[in-house]
Amino acid sequence: MSPQNRPQQVERWGIFELSLDGPTEDNPFLDVKFSAHFSQGHRTIAVDGFYDGEGVYRVRFMPDVEGAWRYVTHSNRPELEGAAGEFTVVAPGPENHGPISVHSTYHFAYADGTPYHQIGTTCYVWNHQGDELEEQTLATLKTAPFNKMRMCVFPKHYLYNENEPPSYPFEGSRAEGWETTRFNPAYFRHLEQRVGDLQALGIEADLILFHPYDRWGFATMDAESDDRYLRYLVARLAAYRNIWWSMANEYDLMKNKEMSDWDRFFRVVQESDPYQHLRSIHNCRPFYDHNKPWVTHASVQHSDLERVREWRTTYQKPVVVDECCYEGNVERAWGNISAQEMVHRFWLGTVIGGGYVGHGETYLHQEDILWWAKGGVLHGKSPARIAFLRRILEDSPPQGLEPVDRFGTAKGTDFYLYYFGVRQPGEYTLKLPSDRHYTVEIIDTWHMTLTPLGETVSGEALVKLPSKPYLGLRVRAI
Amino acid sequence: MSPQNRPQQVERWGIFELSLDGPTEDNPFLDVKFSAHFSQGHRTIAVDGFYDGEGVYRVRFMPDVEGAWRYVTHSNRPELEGAAGEFTVVAPGPENHGPISVHSTYHFAYADGTPYHQIGTTCYVWNHQGDELEEQTLATLKTAPFNKMRMCVFPKHYLYNENEPPSYPFEGSRAEGWETTRFNPAYFRHLEQRVGDLQALGIEADLILFHPYDRWGFATMDAESDDRYLRYLVARLAAYRNIWWSMANEYDLMKNKEMSDWDRFFRVVQESDPYQHLRSIHNCRPFYDHNKPWVTHASVQHSDLERVREWRTTYQKPVVVDECCYEGNVERAWGNISAQEMVHRFWLGTVIGGGYVGHGETYLHQEDILWWAKGGVLHGKSPARIAFLRRILEDSPPQGLEPVDRFGTAKGTDFYLYYFGVRQPGEYTLKLPSDRHYTVEIIDTWHMTLTPLGETVSGEALVKLPSKPYLGLRVRAI
Repeated sequence: MSPQNRPQQVERWGIFELSLDGPTEDNPFLDVKFSAHFSQGHRTIAVDGFYDGEGVYRVRFMPDVEGAWRYVTHSNRPELEGAAGEFTVVAPGPENHGPISVHSTYHFAYADGTPYHQIGTTCYVWNHQGDELEEQTLATLKTAPFNKMRMCVFPKHYLYNENEPPSYPFEGSRAEGWETTRFNPAYFRHLEQRVGDLQALGIEADLILFHPYDRWGFATMDAESDDRYLRYLVARLAAYRNIWWSMANEYDLMKNKEMSDWDRFFRVVQESDPYQHLRSIHNCRPFYDHNKPWVTHASVQHSDLERVREWRTTYQKPVVVDECCYEGNVERAWGNISAQEMVHRFWLGTVIGGGYVGHGETYLHQEDILWWAKGGVLHGKSPARIAFLRRILEDSPPQGLEPVDRFGTAKGTDFYLYYFGVRQPGEYTLKLPSDRHYTVEIIDTWHMTLTPLGETVSGEALVKLPSKPYLGLRVRAI
Repeated sequence: MSPQNRPQQVERWGIFELSLDGPTEDNPFLDVKFSAHFSQGHRTIAVDGFYDGEGVYRVRFMPDVEGAWRYVTHSNRPELEGAAGEFTVVAPGPENHGPISVHSTYHFAYADGTPYHQIGTTCYVWNHQGDELEEQTLATLKTAPFNKMRMCVFPKHYLYNENEPPSYPFEGSRAEGWETTRFNPAYFRHLEQRVGDLQALGIEADLILFHPYDRWGFATMDAESDDRYLRYLVARLAAYRNIWWSMANEYDLMKNKEMSDWDRFFRVVQESDPYQHLRSIHNCRPFYDHNKPWVTHASVQHSDLERVREWRTTYQKPVVVDECCYEGNVERAWGNISAQEMVHRFWLGTVIGGGYVGHGETYLHQEDILWWAKGGVLHGKSPARIAFLRRILEDSPPQGLEPVDRFGTAKGTDFYLYYFGVRQPGEYTLKLPSDRHYTVEIIDTWHMTLTPLGETVSGEALVKLPSKPYLGLRVRAI
């Protein structure tokens, strides 16, 4: 135990990490219990540690309050028991707003109160492609509009996904079987590196814990192995403030799991995670019952974005349409909507629905590098338009959008957004408070323009519109 | 009774009309029974006659077999009883294919076997606008792509529909009440004239018998008046081969009617109509149970044309989406979809669904002459594209389209149509019989072009496509 293992200062919502040397004999993953208590005043938080290989044990902690903290370790091995110390939590850096949680029933905010307008994308296994492509993906993300990435812990076996990952989560091999009691720490360190890289770009990592597209056996482990894997993963990753837990991609396609397994996974994650990061589960066809109390928000796959309002009402939680088909040109129906349709679905789900939408891109590629699975570069026309939408959302009051009429949502009485989609009304009646005056701009969602109407309005006001599809309105109090 | 009342020759599926002079005292509509039996060999058809005012009684008959027919009248009044005669039914003219009925479960055909691909439009009360506008509507229809018109018997009171009709179906007035036992024959003669005008243009008249948009009281008559009106209407109009009976527009908005009323209306019409013209009922929100045996085809209002296949399966009848929103720019959501969206919905419902779709147009107009209600001229861009679709349908084998895969329908193994809509696959696998060869053309549904692929295909064949939305494929056996 050397002094450099115990940094004296850590940012609020940063990671304090303690590493101790410990036993290597037998199976440390199974035999050694290691955890720590982190305390400030009368408050104590119990945090699981994990074995990181080569005799090193670590425990990570994300402090949520500034000031002095102290810790003490606990273990069934004397060399890991009772290590104690102190550290100081200082103010977060300018880009550090803390973890995200549900805000105002249907929306999200960072822990420091900053609103978070989820604009997701999907690169399922970008983190299994080797450093060259992974670095290219990060470079693309740097200028892309996305602030959430859906990605898998396990590698993927599917159309356009035939390559082996650089490493595996367990010792063993596909041919001879996996020792699911012996994790491969390097595999998880790489995952942590990529989650950290996303964090540096301001991107949340919506980590998919299980998925059906598997040729290795990771989708069909026994219950004990599943739960052990979940606890190990949470112990390693929960201290990353940008982590979200997605129990599954297309849970209903995993025929080896019962609904009771999914319920148990939620509980295991919830029990293990000291920070209560966001938890969800994504469907292929039938939705999971997002009313269950351990679900923080509805993560759905669906193509009809006009139904977001209905799901908000059903679940009384934020609705994130994580998959609404991808912009692309593959043969399969899930991956060939036009850029215009993708942009349209974003506006429908976000502006009419008061929900959140996810992007993905699947253009045929000579080397099968499709963004939706492997990352790389973006080829489509939707991201620029999605960026335009994000700018409009961020340049608005902090509240989430709430429906006001069939085509409109509002943030209080200061700010209204309307979206007409494939409709092209030549006139529209705004119903605004009559004690205030508002400017009106016509939004062209495809051409990314905002055109002021030239007159201010108040109360019930009929505004004249160009009769063109894919327009919206931004109405702001003066 | 003069000889000119009894034409000696009538076309098959034409109208034989007999008129007799009879009593005028009391209320002939109520007091006088008048009908005729039409016979050929051992076959006899009982047909109701009707009072046409000014002492004239008529009975109309649409013969369906060529050759010699005879008739004899029946009445509770001696002067109308026992009039007998003969006439000859000759071959139909070149444009006369007879009435339409259901064919091959999901489709329609004329009585002579000619396929009928329903391409509908809606001008609810074009027949209540005075001759000048009505003649303009007919001139428009002459070059428009539509072969069915949805239209109401009663006038309409609604947004953009504030004008009074030129005449009323009953004696009386709105202020003093209607004598629903005394029809206004001139009103119905005008309706017949317009139904006949449509017939001359090859257009079916889908006659809406009741609708909720009413300020006169025609939507809230008592049951006896409703039934009497239906019997009178059927007696007058059933002999027109282009008549379809639509019990209602938006039946569910007529709060004075119970479901048992709608069931009864179907039965009254079915009992009264010697020719069993097509019968349907149109909803606003909940569908009527189109499985009921008196419903010949499902007439639905719905915006999701991807569900046509499901409704075919549910009802095992043809599905006609008579209202899927209208091309236009009014404020209300039912009347402001873009031309492209209207064309898209036609292709979805027709080519993917194996069903049939209806058009309507609602562009704001200085004098409130919106096609969807009053007719006039067409302003939109969808009719030309709908005409293109109709040409493709008519230039194909006689069968109806049956689903083959998610994006395709076929007529046997000779002819396949695919439509990709907002999807833009760069390649698509056709699964064709391997013992035949096919030409493939790329259909641009918006630009109305057919571009041959340049190679023929057979069996399972991957074809390369431009990655653009709103394309389809026509695949024809060589």
